[in-house]
Amino acid sequence: LLCCASCNGRPDPRKRDALIGLEASRRTGGDITLNEREKLLDGKLQKLKQHDMEAGQFPPSMHFFKAKRLIDQSPVFNLIQKMPKGAALHVHDFAMVSVDWLVKNVTYRENCYVCFTDKQTVQFIFSSGPPASSSYCSSWTLLRSLREKIKNTTELDNSFIRNLTLFTEDPDRAYPNQDTVWERFEQVFLVAYGLVTYAPVFKDYLYEGLRQFYEDNIMYVEIRALLPQTYELDGRLNDKDWSMAACQEVVNQFKKHHPDFIGARVIFTVHRKINATEAVKTVEEAMILRRNFPDVMAGFDFVGQEDLGRPLWYFKDALSLPEDKGFNLPYFFHAGETDSQGTDVDQNLMDALLFNTTRIGHGFALARHPVVKEMARKMDVPIEVCPISNQVLKLVSDLRDHPAAVLMAEGHPLVISSDDPAVFGATALSHDFYEAFMGFGGMSFNLGTLKELALNSLRYSTLPSQRKEEAIDALLVKWDKFVWESLL
Amino acid sequence: LLCCASCNGRPDPRKRDALIGLEASRRTGGDITLNEREKLLDGKLQKLKQHDMEAGQFPPSMHFFKAKRLIDQSPVFNLIQKMPKGAALHVHDFAMVSVDWLVKNVTYRENCYVCFTDKQTVQFIFSSGPPASSSYCSSWTLLRSLREKIKNTTELDNSFIRNLTLFTEDPDRAYPNQDTVWERFEQVFLVAYGLVTYAPVFKDYLYEGLRQFYEDNIMYVEIRALLPQTYELDGRLNDKDWSMAACQEVVNQFKKHHPDFIGARVIFTVHRKINATEAVKTVEEAMILRRNFPDVMAGFDFVGQEDLGRPLWYFKDALSLPEDKGFNLPYFFHAGETDSQGTDVDQNLMDALLFNTTRIGHGFALARHPVVKEMARKMDVPIEVCPISNQVLKLVSDLRDHPAAVLMAEGHPLVISSDDPAVFGATALSHDFYEAFMGFGGMSFNLGTLKELALNSLRYSTLPSQRKEEAIDALLVKWDKFVWESLL
Ligand SMILES: [Zn+2]
Ligand SMILES: [Zn+2]
Repeated sequence: LLCCASCNGRPDPRKRDALIGLEASRRTGGDITLNEREKLLDGKLQKLKQHDMEAGQFPPSMHFFKAKRLIDQSPVFNLIQKMPKGAALHVHDFAMVSVDWLVKNVTYRENCYVCFTDKQTVQFIFSSGPPASSSYCSSWTLLRSLREKIKNTTELDNSFIRNLTLFTEDPDRAYPNQDTVWERFEQVFLVAYGLVTYAPVFKDYLYEGLRQFYEDNIMYVEIRALLPQTYELDGRLNDKDWSMAACQEVVNQFKKHHPDFIGARVIFTVHRKINATEAVKTVEEAMILRRNFPDVMAGFDFVGQEDLGRPLWYFKDALSLPEDKGFNLPYFFHAGETDSQGTDVDQNLMDALLFNTTRIGHGFALARHPVVKEMARKMDVPIEVCPISNQVLKLVSDLRDHPAAVLMAEGHPLVISSDDPAVFGATALSHDFYEAFMGFGGMSFNLGTLKELALNSLRYSTLPSQRKEEAIDALLVKWDKFVWESLL
Repeated sequence: LLCCASCNGRPDPRKRDALIGLEASRRTGGDITLNEREKLLDGKLQKLKQHDMEAGQFPPSMHFFKAKRLIDQSPVFNLIQKMPKGAALHVHDFAMVSVDWLVKNVTYRENCYVCFTDKQTVQFIFSSGPPASSSYCSSWTLLRSLREKIKNTTELDNSFIRNLTLFTEDPDRAYPNQDTVWERFEQVFLVAYGLVTYAPVFKDYLYEGLRQFYEDNIMYVEIRALLPQTYELDGRLNDKDWSMAACQEVVNQFKKHHPDFIGARVIFTVHRKINATEAVKTVEEAMILRRNFPDVMAGFDFVGQEDLGRPLWYFKDALSLPEDKGFNLPYFFHAGETDSQGTDVDQNLMDALLFNTTRIGHGFALARHPVVKEMARKMDVPIEVCPISNQVLKLVSDLRDHPAAVLMAEGHPLVISSDDPAVFGATALSHDFYEAFMGFGGMSFNLGTLKELALNSLRYSTLPSQRKEEAIDALLVKWDKFVWESLL
């Protein structure tokens, strides 16, 4: 077909249609056959999409902070919100819950102290008595007393919210380059730190996170978690075992309250600035956690700005440990979250595969690595695409230029995720689904694309095969209900 | 190799090296073996590149209007300027010559009149007596008188220059979206129109254009030309035959003065807003021109904003005419210069191939069309990549995200060109070469990439095979001289 297309003579319209069909079949979801009801809904969806594409301002071409208002009004987004989306496979522990909840709920709890740093940010701590002051921060003030004193607390609360997200009206001015936005990004986590590592809040945060994802029609979550020490009101510290046990407990509790929620697992992460010796220790720690909590502990990963961190190959000894010991520690490496080409960091994608990674976080650079791309496809290792994260962290400005548009056109294995929705001011997954659906595919994607993305999220999860099949069956039941209700 | 890479056990460093080597060999120029001198120069080049990549502000990530100052100071750019670059295969007739020349030379000629439009632009005309005034413009003023009256002509000349380019300090503010920048872009051509269609200037412009390309170490040019009517001082009009003959004459004259310049050919273009009937007439006109000027007339193409224009398939009857008549009219379609996916216009890439196009202008959307990409590769139809044009016309903001980075990683057939360097304030080809080399490849490209790009430009030219071989031989002699001199 490909060869004959350029035969001499007028182009044959039937051949042309066949080629167009061939291209459509290769796309993500291109081999899904829609049933009659799905076809009806798809017709409706195509009209809604056309409206979004011709509205003058196309949200995926704009920065999410400016596009959000438009997306929230889009009927396509409304449909995506209602759609069962399966699983969120790439989200970070302390960026799951809308920051409103942190401010309006957590900071209003008893014994919450605040201090103001010399970097114009804030820190929080829970303590039974006045905490010891630190050099870089004002003295600690009990928030309850502060709020009573200033009466109008709206501005104070808003300033906390600003401290906990990257949101700003003029992101291009506020974050001129990748380094500045990453600096602010890591600062945001420091602000949340004192709140979310308070042991009772740690549990509540996770519960609330699951609730917000569940509300966004997600049935299963895999969470990248730093598992820092948590603290009690009297200053006692809890270790990683405590955190793991807490996760298991909260997940079970949440499942009990929401029987159609499948569950959540944790991928233990560490910052990629650590050295080789620390890495060995951390991998050993990961193996112990995996042995002690096989149900909830899914594997290991590095986090932090890839360009400034150490390349995976630097950690080769640590990463070979489990294999050497005949222990199965699955990896879920962030890799290729970079615009630099031909650098050591740019080899992370290949090395992630050489270390037999289960999935790849982001894989933004994958399309520029044809050999690695083929390997990933052969090994069926998906990338976890997080459109809004890549845009906010300045890898790409117009999401139509996101390399996932190329990969989805080729049907490359991938899932859509949201990375740090709370920090970006996004919903659990729906905003990222909208950006991917509209930005990567324009008019060329259809309802089959969305269905495939939802199915992929379970297929590429770490659920054991029996539970995976059950989850997919449950998703398809939800899907049919969604299609039916959307046609009413 | 690909399959075994993920075998269990520690990754084998030799396999890893082999995979890295395999990926390197697939890149544009990846199979070029550098000789000893070239290796030395490449070592030097890699150091210079590293400096540009670590300087804090990486030019390809910035808008060209802001990056130009940095690029001009870059030793990598300096090397690229001196490098023999072969041919420029995608440039437009009235955007070849630095606008300084238009203002400082052409507008200072006798009988040049100016008027100021209600859209705050200017128009020019040459006339032996006062020209008839038009409704949308002030009355015509003889420029010589105006200049004598205002004495300080610098500001006037600068305002003309501003009218003739898209350059501005804050491009993001001036051009918020594709439609606004295209509107200004087409306006710029209207300002130049009265100058460049004056018959004597038409010839001088082409000569000066060839000179500026020659000075940028280019030995051959293929020019997309609208071939509008030119006019004489008394208002007489010349037709397309006159323009073609003028081109032939100027090119021959230029070659006589510069014996190592190979020549130039013209691709006749028409705006894609015309209707089917007009298209039939135009294609018939193109066939006649091709018959009458076989040496200089290379083929046919459409121009104008692709998203707002008619898709190629709309013109299928007109475009089938030559084939139907057994006449060979080569096509060089602009296609895929769009961010819209799944629209009628988005089929232009496939249709360009179905109509047996010789090359594809831009092909920005090609990576998102895997079937068309394979077809193009099998048919050995290259795309003409114009990085600065795509950035200024707002298809992509950070050039590291340009899809040509993906295509060059795969060794897809392509050439680098400059589209409308005068309007963007760029040199003939060197700025675009710099952006492509640094932006699309970062540290992963080498001297072999540059050599391949230079060779490609002649390989994919329309030069007949005998002359093509001679041109390539001449390029290689220049190349060796360049390598030798750059090592001194
Ligand atoms: Zn992440
Ligand atoms: Zn062009």
